[in-house]
Amino acid sequence: MDELLNYISIGGSFALAISGALKAMDKKFDPFGVLIIAFVTAVGGGTMRDVLLTDKSVFWLNETPYIYFIIAGALIALIFQHKLAFFHKTLMAFDAIGLALYTIIGVQIGIDYGLDFINCIILGTLTGAFGGVLRDILVNEIPVIFHKEIYATVSIAGGLLYYALYQLGVSNPLLQIIPIVGMIVARSLIMYFNVSFPSIYKEKE
Amino acid sequence: MDELLNYISIGGSFALAISGALKAMDKKFDPFGVLIIAFVTAVGGGTMRDVLLTDKSVFWLNETPYIYFIIAGALIALIFQHKLAFFHKTLMAFDAIGLALYTIIGVQIGIDYGLDFINCIILGTLTGAFGGVLRDILVNEIPVIFHKEIYATVSIAGGLLYYALYQLGVSNPLLQIIPIVGMIVARSLIMYFNVSFPSIYKEKE
Amino acid sequence: MDELLNYISIGGSFALAISGALKAMDKKFDPFGVLIIAFVTAVGGGTMRDVLLTDKSVFWLNETPYIYFIIAGALIALIFQHKLAFFHKTLMAFDAIGLALYTIIGVQIGIDYGLDFINCIILGTLTGAFGGVLRDILVNEIPVIFHKEIYATVSIAGGLLYYALYQLGVSNPLLQIIPIVGMIVARSLIMYFNVSFPSIYKEKE
Repeated sequence: MDELLNYISIGGSFALAISGALKAMDKKFDPFGVLIIAFVTAVGGGTMRDVLLTDKSVFWLNETPYIYFIIAGALIALIFQHKLAFFHKTLMAFDAIGLALYTIIGVQIGIDYGLDFINCIILGTLTGAFGGVLRDILVNEIPVIFHKEIYATVSIAGGLLYYALYQLGVSNPLLQIIPIVGMIVARSLIMYFNVSFPSIYKEKE
Repeated sequence: MDELLNYISIGGSFALAISGALKAMDKKFDPFGVLIIAFVTAVGGGTMRDVLLTDKSVFWLNETPYIYFIIAGALIALIFQHKLAFFHKTLMAFDAIGLALYTIIGVQIGIDYGLDFINCIILGTLTGAFGGVLRDILVNEIPVIFHKEIYATVSIAGGLLYYALYQLGVSNPLLQIIPIVGMIVARSLIMYFNVSFPSIYKEKE
Repeated sequence: MDELLNYISIGGSFALAISGALKAMDKKFDPFGVLIIAFVTAVGGGTMRDVLLTDKSVFWLNETPYIYFIIAGALIALIFQHKLAFFHKTLMAFDAIGLALYTIIGVQIGIDYGLDFINCIILGTLTGAFGGVLRDILVNEIPVIFHKEIYATVSIAGGLLYYALYQLGVSNPLLQIIPIVGMIVARSLIMYFNVSFPSIYKEKE
């Protein structure tokens, strides 16, 4: 991963940490609980990816800046708890950036490890969307991405796009920029127009 | 593992995927959520086993057919949601086959890795019964095998039987067939007669 | 780890197993469920630590005594369910010993693996306090250490103290004894005086 990508990825983890912390504060967790939920939301997906890959070390054990940015994110959420609502849209933007970048990173790692197509997509979605799943499990809720939001689907689609561009031989600035921008735009439109899947359940709805 | 065992194991994961998908649809998950629960139910136990074994790669990262069969299982569940009740017994049979096969595979892997007796049994039960535990955690329920069904106990008993036969030097067709058939028969009888443990709690029951 | 530490650590896992089993019996789990919750409470944190460290094998796969002591703990809880309330304080003492020892072990392993300061503290807290988090997830509750008890904070503080003493060159009997005694005393005082964090939430409390 090049330098710029690394910085933006840390920015994404910072934003995910804040969104995780806000969720924990919603549940009246104590400061330690807020910190843990921030941490898990920010690095949970990438951690699961690294644990699944036998000889890959867990990224934040070697890249400490992630941890300090996450702690900073949790502290900011704790200190400015009543003012963060104003920044809601900024946060959502960061969250979308994090989703997009983490997805690309996950798919690329799958390619680097010589995995099959479908496993590359799975690693991308795991990296991008599963911090939020772990967060929801810890606060004892059904993970929101399973039944409310078009979130993981954006990750899957973005991963497929990245993989296709990679196979077509598209080289590096465009290879990354197209799916990243695509996912961010898709998430923005979905949030702006409040789009959701039509229900697949016919009765009583 | 020989070829036949591999095919039947994929069949077991297919059945577990359908049963996971049905559970997710019960909870009104969206199609993506249904797919994830199907996936976790089918490969969750084996994944936990492979993650615990330091130098073992996670099986579905190298054996892609599992994933396609799981996706097929989830799609079938989504398409035929109203008709699957008719196949309930068939599904339960597949589920019992999956439990039996996964248990044997887990115990054998423990033996191959030179683990102690008790850890071989633990790996067998983990492989056979813990996809369902992860499924229940994700749908925010107390895992059903902890308080309702005689399920994991069948896996433990089957694992013990396999381990004993292995130590007695019983060779391969019988070594696998006896505990597999034993577990399937046990699960069938338990479901048919609706057997459950007597309560260990004296008051108020 | 020297012999004595190893024995006391097994004692800690035994106590954690009993406390996990009591929680499971509170939820009316069947004997298998009680055993699993005991197991997860006792070794869950250390298992997560070992899984995160790429080339470290999971400790209980090679040190079987842990497993037999956990099974013994679960059986004792099942047999003496109505009498264990009398031993509540003894149990809490063991639990505090377990927390203290596991924290030190986790921090030391982080140092042995050449990890950064912050990751050593994280490994310590993971080892000491996250068996209880997994226990609470499995019984479908919000982890108690996130919102009720000053528990993980003791682990963090103890880990920091151990790390500081290590860096100051304090050698082995004192290096271990000071933070271990400190954490046990801190937990005892917290429980005795029923101390909790002041709420960080202003409204309605």
